[in-house]
Amino acid sequence: MTSPTATLLISCPDQPGLVAKMANFIYSNGGNIIHADQHTDFTAGLFLTRIEWQLEGFNLPRNIIGAAFQAIAQPLNARWQLHFSDAMPRIAIWVSKQDHCLFDLIWRQRAGELAAEIPLIISNHEKLQPIAEQFGIDFHHLPMSADIKAEQEVKQLQLLKDYNIDLVVLAKYMQVLSADFITQFANTINIHHSFLPAFPGANPYQRAYERGVKIIGATAHYVTQDLDEGPIIEQDVVRVSHRDQTSDLIRKGKDLERMVLARAVRLHLQNRVLVYGNRTVVFA
Amino acid sequence: MTSPTATLLISCPDQPGLVAKMANFIYSNGGNIIHADQHTDFTAGLFLTRIEWQLEGFNLPRNIIGAAFQAIAQPLNARWQLHFSDAMPRIAIWVSKQDHCLFDLIWRQRAGELAAEIPLIISNHEKLQPIAEQFGIDFHHLPMSADIKAEQEVKQLQLLKDYNIDLVVLAKYMQVLSADFITQFANTINIHHSFLPAFPGANPYQRAYERGVKIIGATAHYVTQDLDEGPIIEQDVVRVSHRDQTSDLIRKGKDLERMVLARAVRLHLQNRVLVYGNRTVVFA
Amino acid sequence: MTSPTATLLISCPDQPGLVAKMANFIYSNGGNIIHADQHTDFTAGLFLTRIEWQLEGFNLPRNIIGAAFQAIAQPLNARWQLHFSDAMPRIAIWVSKQDHCLFDLIWRQRAGELAAEIPLIISNHEKLQPIAEQFGIDFHHLPMSADIKAEQEVKQLQLLKDYNIDLVVLAKYMQVLSADFITQFANTINIHHSFLPAFPGANPYQRAYERGVKIIGATAHYVTQDLDEGPIIEQDVVRVSHRDQTSDLIRKGKDLERMVLARAVRLHLQNRVLVYGNRTVVFA
Amino acid sequence: MTSPTATLLISCPDQPGLVAKMANFIYSNGGNIIHADQHTDFTAGLFLTRIEWQLEGFNLPRNIIGAAFQAIAQPLNARWQLHFSDAMPRIAIWVSKQDHCLFDLIWRQRAGELAAEIPLIISNHEKLQPIAEQFGIDFHHLPMSADIKAEQEVKQLQLLKDYNIDLVVLAKYMQVLSADFITQFANTINIHHSFLPAFPGANPYQRAYERGVKIIGATAHYVTQDLDEGPIIEQDVVRVSHRDQTSDLIRKGKDLERMVLARAVRLHLQNRVLVYGNRTVVFA
Repeated sequence: MTSPTATLLISCPDQPGLVAKMANFIYSNGGNIIHADQHTDFTAGLFLTRIEWQLEGFNLPRNIIGAAFQAIAQPLNARWQLHFSDAMPRIAIWVSKQDHCLFDLIWRQRAGELAAEIPLIISNHEKLQPIAEQFGIDFHHLPMSADIKAEQEVKQLQLLKDYNIDLVVLAKYMQVLSADFITQFANTINIHHSFLPAFPGANPYQRAYERGVKIIGATAHYVTQDLDEGPIIEQDVVRVSHRDQTSDLIRKGKDLERMVLARAVRLHLQNRVLVYGNRTVVFA
Repeated sequence: MTSPTATLLISCPDQPGLVAKMANFIYSNGGNIIHADQHTDFTAGLFLTRIEWQLEGFNLPRNIIGAAFQAIAQPLNARWQLHFSDAMPRIAIWVSKQDHCLFDLIWRQRAGELAAEIPLIISNHEKLQPIAEQFGIDFHHLPMSADIKAEQEVKQLQLLKDYNIDLVVLAKYMQVLSADFITQFANTINIHHSFLPAFPGANPYQRAYERGVKIIGATAHYVTQDLDEGPIIEQDVVRVSHRDQTSDLIRKGKDLERMVLARAVRLHLQNRVLVYGNRTVVFA
Repeated sequence: MTSPTATLLISCPDQPGLVAKMANFIYSNGGNIIHADQHTDFTAGLFLTRIEWQLEGFNLPRNIIGAAFQAIAQPLNARWQLHFSDAMPRIAIWVSKQDHCLFDLIWRQRAGELAAEIPLIISNHEKLQPIAEQFGIDFHHLPMSADIKAEQEVKQLQLLKDYNIDLVVLAKYMQVLSADFITQFANTINIHHSFLPAFPGANPYQRAYERGVKIIGATAHYVTQDLDEGPIIEQDVVRVSHRDQTSDLIRKGKDLERMVLARAVRLHLQNRVLVYGNRTVVFA
Repeated sequence: MTSPTATLLISCPDQPGLVAKMANFIYSNGGNIIHADQHTDFTAGLFLTRIEWQLEGFNLPRNIIGAAFQAIAQPLNARWQLHFSDAMPRIAIWVSKQDHCLFDLIWRQRAGELAAEIPLIISNHEKLQPIAEQFGIDFHHLPMSADIKAEQEVKQLQLLKDYNIDLVVLAKYMQVLSADFITQFANTINIHHSFLPAFPGANPYQRAYERGVKIIGATAHYVTQDLDEGPIIEQDVVRVSHRDQTSDLIRKGKDLERMVLARAVRLHLQNRVLVYGNRTVVFA
């Protein structure tokens, strides 16, 4: 499997023959499929699939695979994305004052668990700048408050352009992105420190303590204009007891947050997450 | 440990010497403590403890232990309960049309996992009467609707009296008890089919499906006048994926519901649950 | 999805075009694939797949689908099984003295979770006969001991023939099947009360207690001639603590055993388990 | 709870009055107990307890608490340890080539999750020296092989003395300590990358893959002369599937290893782990 691969993520109205059509496209061009998974949402009448094949021996040059597949996709009214495994997506990590998710993502990227580059860190505080320097990553400090939000978002968007960023990861950024921002840059993953839809919004750990729950969680989701309502990629939980104060929930939650966020980012980078409506299919 | 035991569940304002005072009460009367656990809620300034000791060799007759302990508890402004391990609490199981929790509770009681008697089943439907008969348990059918709720609750309360019921277990009863009922019979455990506070109220599985969560749960709690807001005893969760339809969530949820409810009932019967405010200390 | 479906479970040496070939077979005969999943074991050089399609509108009559597919499978050196969703496999449950798995399997079959018939219960003890009668299932008591094992197994095999049994489920049977028996009836699922390969053989709970583990488990696997070494279908675990005596491990383990066994049987009945070598692919 | 606390970990033959005697010792000297938990192992006839109280207002100076308690402990044949919460144990982390546990432990110590100092890192390879330098921790490279093991262990023991080390954490050290070493330095925690007793010894992930298990785990335990047989402090597991190659098991295992090891070290540092025989009581 050392050969680079191409991956198609496809969704289209369900009809007979879709698996055959798509498999034939790969096979007739000399490709060897190494992963093919599909799901049919009978409620939505949607066919959703992920197909990954080795580019070695594939007869179509990369730059025309898309056009060639569009000839098949168009009559099926299919929405699709094409990705290459040797492309290195560029991630901007946005943080506030907490370092656990930032540290974890950088460590995983260095350890080879995340096939991406991390050229940019943006924060509304200066606190984590030393970590950026320690790992040789550009750090931009953009303070945030209601009155300057609009102008700061302009700068943020410019930075994403300048650094040619493909994915923004909100690693405990603790700020809400404006609808306007989200319209201009859609590809953003956030980690929320509760098992949504429980405790949306602020201070979920404090509220979890007050409610006396026996389990807390964390949720990684794509950011949409409805706060904490975006498509969920991954969730996980941990048991707590009466002995756990809010500070213990926060401590235990940090481990959840970094694990759940890292899994979601990895799934996204492997092109295993297909969003439709407000749902995800995770081809794990 | 074949000797019957006595258990004290105590909560009082925190102050030095509480553990010593209570342990001395047992020891000075010849008792051997087999379990003692305590928790201090520094936020509430409360000391909460569970002490269990063997009655064999204890010098106080059962009928005066309470009075004797009250002499210690009163100056401490302590609230306390005294229970004996060989007492057999009497449970009324309330059901609607689903049998999984009912079957499970009966099986566990027969298997010796629940030290209680189950003399009474109440249902707003006749569907599960055969199960009651199969296991030789009295079954009372009390249909429920808004217009007859008041009069039916009178009958329900009378049945709880007639059968000398200590604990009501709502095993998927799917009906809301009135504030008036709860005032007259407080000791009720309910199983809610979501990880509260997510998806309170009706159809949590359908709503969980629509939200696209990756984890579903169940919650066992004491019933209070605020629907689904009572003190949580136990929760558990299970992973779901895009392949799970609402019907799969319901199926997976059934296993959660019966496990979580059974654990909560067992903890309650072992006098391991101490409620204060809207919280529980579970001395597991 | 009310239409009955056909499912092919296929394994063959990996080569390009397999997905296309198989999807074309379904499509060219008018079938609509509702589930297709595949896995490539690069170590073994094996392609393994599960394809399920609706029989409604499929042009091949059931009785020749196999022959038609064999024409494709044979040149690929493929091993394959064909199953129909409306077939009702017949299960024989083998028990000893413990009833929890038996009760659970019967309840799930009655609840519609297991698409199978359960016409036969075999036990080396008479204890559970009342349960069989309660649910109207034939019960055969075949005492077992080393000296009569051979002759009893002859009777057991005869019963499996007489009742036209497709699958034997060892629901805490607590006896070892002879190599000769396994040769004559291969399709058997066993529940082992530990997370194999930990604590193989007898008394795993006692040994788990003695070792002081913090987690116990259960394992459902196909029975092979190497005791507790068969292909694993499903495993699950639960936390234990120093407070748990061996009897608590046994009690907690019962819940694990019935859940894990039920999941494994359900996966098997849905033809989602593909065995190769000593491994399983579970197309969940 | 900002006041420093003292903690007694005690084990002695069970007899009536132990809780009272020990609570009285604290109370009669003006101490306020903030945590008291006890366990009775009826099989071993042992009483085991953890008592933590605030030193503020306690009438005995620290340096004579031990002597004073010994007067109570001696007639009870009690084994006991006394710890102060503001003492800062000194940890030596031993590593080989893998950095995930090292990074994690250092991050947690910096984040305040581990109340200890980490002045020393010992490794049989030079690879992780940059991490030591990055965080300003002394790094000693002591290559290891069978023929030089004895002399290297002499140097290791000398380093532990020189740095006044209280606890050695084998954070994927991948080397076996000699019986002689263990006799001279007993206080060592190791992380084993399997849910012991499954897959003891080398290459557990490879063997887990070959066995086709559906769950893998990690185990943190005290090091004894019997390899991988020491008292277990903490274990945890994660699900795997047929899609996971050995490399995926290793990747998933890394998260388990760092979480389980960190929890075990934290529990040890909080003096919540009481070892007796080959078992632990974890007063969590």
